[in-house]
Amino acid sequence: MRYFEDFAEGQEYPFGPHTVTRAEIVAFAAEYDPQPFHLDERAAAETMLGGLAASGWHTCALFMRMMALSWLNASASMGSPGIDSLKWRRPVRPGDVLSGRSVVLGVRPSGSKADRGFVKFRHEVANERGEVVMLVENSIIIGRRG
Amino acid sequence: MRYFEDFAEGQEYPFGPHTVTRAEIVAFAAEYDPQPFHLDERAAAETMLGGLAASGWHTCALFMRMMALSWLNASASMGSPGIDSLKWRRPVRPGDVLSGRSVVLGVRPSGSKADRGFVKFRHEVANERGEVVMLVENSIIIGRRG
Repeated sequence: MRYFEDFAEGQEYPFGPHTVTRAEIVAFAAEYDPQPFHLDERAAAETMLGGLAASGWHTCALFMRMMALSWLNASASMGSPGIDSLKWRRPVRPGDVLSGRSVVLGVRPSGSKADRGFVKFRHEVANERGEVVMLVENSIIIGRRG
Repeated sequence: MRYFEDFAEGQEYPFGPHTVTRAEIVAFAAEYDPQPFHLDERAAAETMLGGLAASGWHTCALFMRMMALSWLNASASMGSPGIDSLKWRRPVRPGDVLSGRSVVLGVRPSGSKADRGFVKFRHEVANERGEVVMLVENSIIIGRRG
């Protein structure tokens, strides 16, 4: 188990991979983001995305899954207050193989609660060609040892 | 159909409601955010959240669904480049009834593409007691008329 004290600026925590399927793109969009460019190739071909692409929120959910399974669930995570910045840089397509890394930008003990601290990350999600598809910056609250 | 020209600072677009169930909280978490406080009441009771609560990404997905069905799909939306700020303010619990509004903060024609513009929003998601559970600021790209 990794605690607040174990995180330090410059560390990198890799996550993934996850292969994105057409079926999951359409299923997520049908439930949560029913816009034509996430649901139907023909409609999507005529849009800015130039073809079927995953909902940006689906990419967030897949990033969260990869992060939890690769490193976050082996830390004393207590959740997050939010997102400082999130950029959807490129479409995520059926067949894309996503992976990435969480880079520690800084650590800060909580000023009010002695049992925890904030670890600020830049998370980079890329496809199998190394193209960044999403960039996220946020802080995660991590419990202190003992 | 609502186009870029139809949006103006100060307008409010309501969305929702959506009643959150325990089953959907656990199902989303099992697939995308398998941390104990999103999966199991007993484990959750001992955490910062004080009981089972939806993944923040689940709240994002439900917000997206409400927004799409309530007003976004009746506009010429072309997607979004990202999120400027996102705050998870309160836990979302089984039985919560979510709704909210998208407030227009400003409009800006695209400098490079004559067929579209950026509409900046503050989106507020609240529960049935009027407590804000999530705040999001972002720009959505909206097509121009004709």
